[in-house]
Amino acid sequence: MENIGKMARKAQNSGVRFRPHFKTHQSAEIGEWFREFGVVSITVSSVDMAVYFSKNGWKDITIAFPVNICEIERINELASKISLNLLVDSHETTLFVIDNLKYKSRAWIDIDVGYKRTGVSWEEPDKVARLAAEIEGSKNLSFAGVLTHAGHSYSAKSTKEVGQVYFDTLNRMKFVQNRLEAKGFSNVETSVGDTPTCSITENFDGLDEIRPGNFVFYDVMQLKLGSCSEEDIAVSLACPVVAKCKERNEIVIHGGAVHLSKEFILDEKGRENFGYVSVPQENGWGPILQNAYVSSLSQEHGIVKAVNDLFDKIQIGDMLMIIPVHSCLTADLMREYVTTEGKLLQMMPKFL
Amino acid sequence: MENIGKMARKAQNSGVRFRPHFKTHQSAEIGEWFREFGVVSITVSSVDMAVYFSKNGWKDITIAFPVNICEIERINELASKISLNLLVDSHETTLFVIDNLKYKSRAWIDIDVGYKRTGVSWEEPDKVARLAAEIEGSKNLSFAGVLTHAGHSYSAKSTKEVGQVYFDTLNRMKFVQNRLEAKGFSNVETSVGDTPTCSITENFDGLDEIRPGNFVFYDVMQLKLGSCSEEDIAVSLACPVVAKCKERNEIVIHGGAVHLSKEFILDEKGRENFGYVSVPQENGWGPILQNAYVSSLSQEHGIVKAVNDLFDKIQIGDMLMIIPVHSCLTADLMREYVTTEGKLLQMMPKFL
Repeated sequence: MENIGKMARKAQNSGVRFRPHFKTHQSAEIGEWFREFGVVSITVSSVDMAVYFSKNGWKDITIAFPVNICEIERINELASKISLNLLVDSHETTLFVIDNLKYKSRAWIDIDVGYKRTGVSWEEPDKVARLAAEIEGSKNLSFAGVLTHAGHSYSAKSTKEVGQVYFDTLNRMKFVQNRLEAKGFSNVETSVGDTPTCSITENFDGLDEIRPGNFVFYDVMQLKLGSCSEEDIAVSLACPVVAKCKERNEIVIHGGAVHLSKEFILDEKGRENFGYVSVPQENGWGPILQNAYVSSLSQEHGIVKAVNDLFDKIQIGDMLMIIPVHSCLTADLMREYVTTEGKLLQMMPKFL
Repeated sequence: MENIGKMARKAQNSGVRFRPHFKTHQSAEIGEWFREFGVVSITVSSVDMAVYFSKNGWKDITIAFPVNICEIERINELASKISLNLLVDSHETTLFVIDNLKYKSRAWIDIDVGYKRTGVSWEEPDKVARLAAEIEGSKNLSFAGVLTHAGHSYSAKSTKEVGQVYFDTLNRMKFVQNRLEAKGFSNVETSVGDTPTCSITENFDGLDEIRPGNFVFYDVMQLKLGSCSEEDIAVSLACPVVAKCKERNEIVIHGGAVHLSKEFILDEKGRENFGYVSVPQENGWGPILQNAYVSSLSQEHGIVKAVNDLFDKIQIGDMLMIIPVHSCLTADLMREYVTTEGKLLQMMPKFL
């Protein structure tokens, strides 16, 4: 809740729309927490997720994933019911949508500001303008603006580098926006949205919308990046201890790749680390243990390396709390949460 | 089906029990295919999975994961209904099970033959004997034998190395078995079960049981290890093309970490490879394309690097068939299969 409040307040202070990404938590009940902060528009990463949240009362949804033309029927169904925002980055897809969309929707053009995953390069504003003109000339699509995900912020080595990514993103998006306005397009909005830049940035002046998602939970990766402090981390996975090996100082937990995902970070010693370790406490978990880490994962097993004193304290049958490396992927592997008050929160079904 | 038949025949020829691991496919319908080859006993990796398959008519199940003492109630419920085989590797867990198990079950002792994950080291047969004596002295547990998973076969660099792992495993298991029999234990069975060694080995003389699982589908990892040929690979993930980037020769698919898992191999050039690429054909898919591979994954996006001629042929809206690096983890992220005849096969629910 505190993470949501903090991000909502920053957005409000800067006068930008807060359209949080719900792909991290995938839970209608957690979604409700956002309403307390005035959130009415959200982001999702798939048509499935858009259907789920629309059924749970969300009326303004952006699917921040390039339109998959195979899903046009379900997109039409959604567009008939809610205010739907689509993402396009190619002439082919845009034409297809224009020809097949039956209800009014808004289209954002995906801009690549340096992540090099999807989107039209920010250095090609004329290409963006051609797409915008196609959209504007269509019957059911209206041009919303330009949208980017500066995912290269995840490769930053320091908060200073994250700040540089934000600075470049802002300037590149403004550059494209200005070029579009110079060509006569009006009300071109700019939307950005990765958790690292949104977390370290205090104000979003000059932008129209932010779409972070991971910040609701944070995780090991974000802690390493400096996007959050340890206290901000709001999710962990309870894993029972099933075996111990004294010779190797290894504790075996029931918590493997099908629970945590195989995402890892390299620690300062160059070792693969699949999660930080903590112990349960009343209402949650204690500080991250400095003398333990998840050193490997197979399908169901996790191996926790723990130095002597800690190793001796942990017994078979105890619970360890694992802080995930990437909370989006860990949450995706689960289907419910338990709050620190013991309440069960459901997630969307894995497949609709 | 052919993979199952081949493995079943090899087991039969060697006179060993074939107790396939069902964690790879997790599907009652695929489970039925095994019955045609006389399979009546199976392996699973969790209590959830044991409950699911017991409800689908399987009466002899080994949970090849060290007993999680927190799950004793559900274990008792299972033990009241089916012939249940448990796995232990510590005095603490064994004692707990002895004190709390209410129905007859069999216990296997987990042996570490070199993988260094769980199990009593094969070099400590006296420790194994002490555990066996505890089991034999209990009311509801009977001692089945020694069980191992030689998972280090996955790190082998050649089929010759896989063969060496099998040879060592066989000898080490026989060594423990002999020591136990010398101490007066009778009918001590030996059970082994990783796909690489079971695939390259032609006969299992000297063993009592094999438990491979992945061989039902195989995958990129097994192909690289030499455990299978390309034609043996029996699963792939259909991923629609949503965008293309000419400058980088990249095709963006809707197929990310939440579909394929983040498991990767390093190719001969040292590049991370998250999957091989093929194109759909009538009744399946064509040969693995030599000029394309999945170079990175985010939550929903996959990036396929494709050289010029192929890049130009693939259009937005086309389907690409991705051969998973690790089919167990990819299957775990899905909830159903479509056979090459177009039949839908359900998997077990993600959580029971």
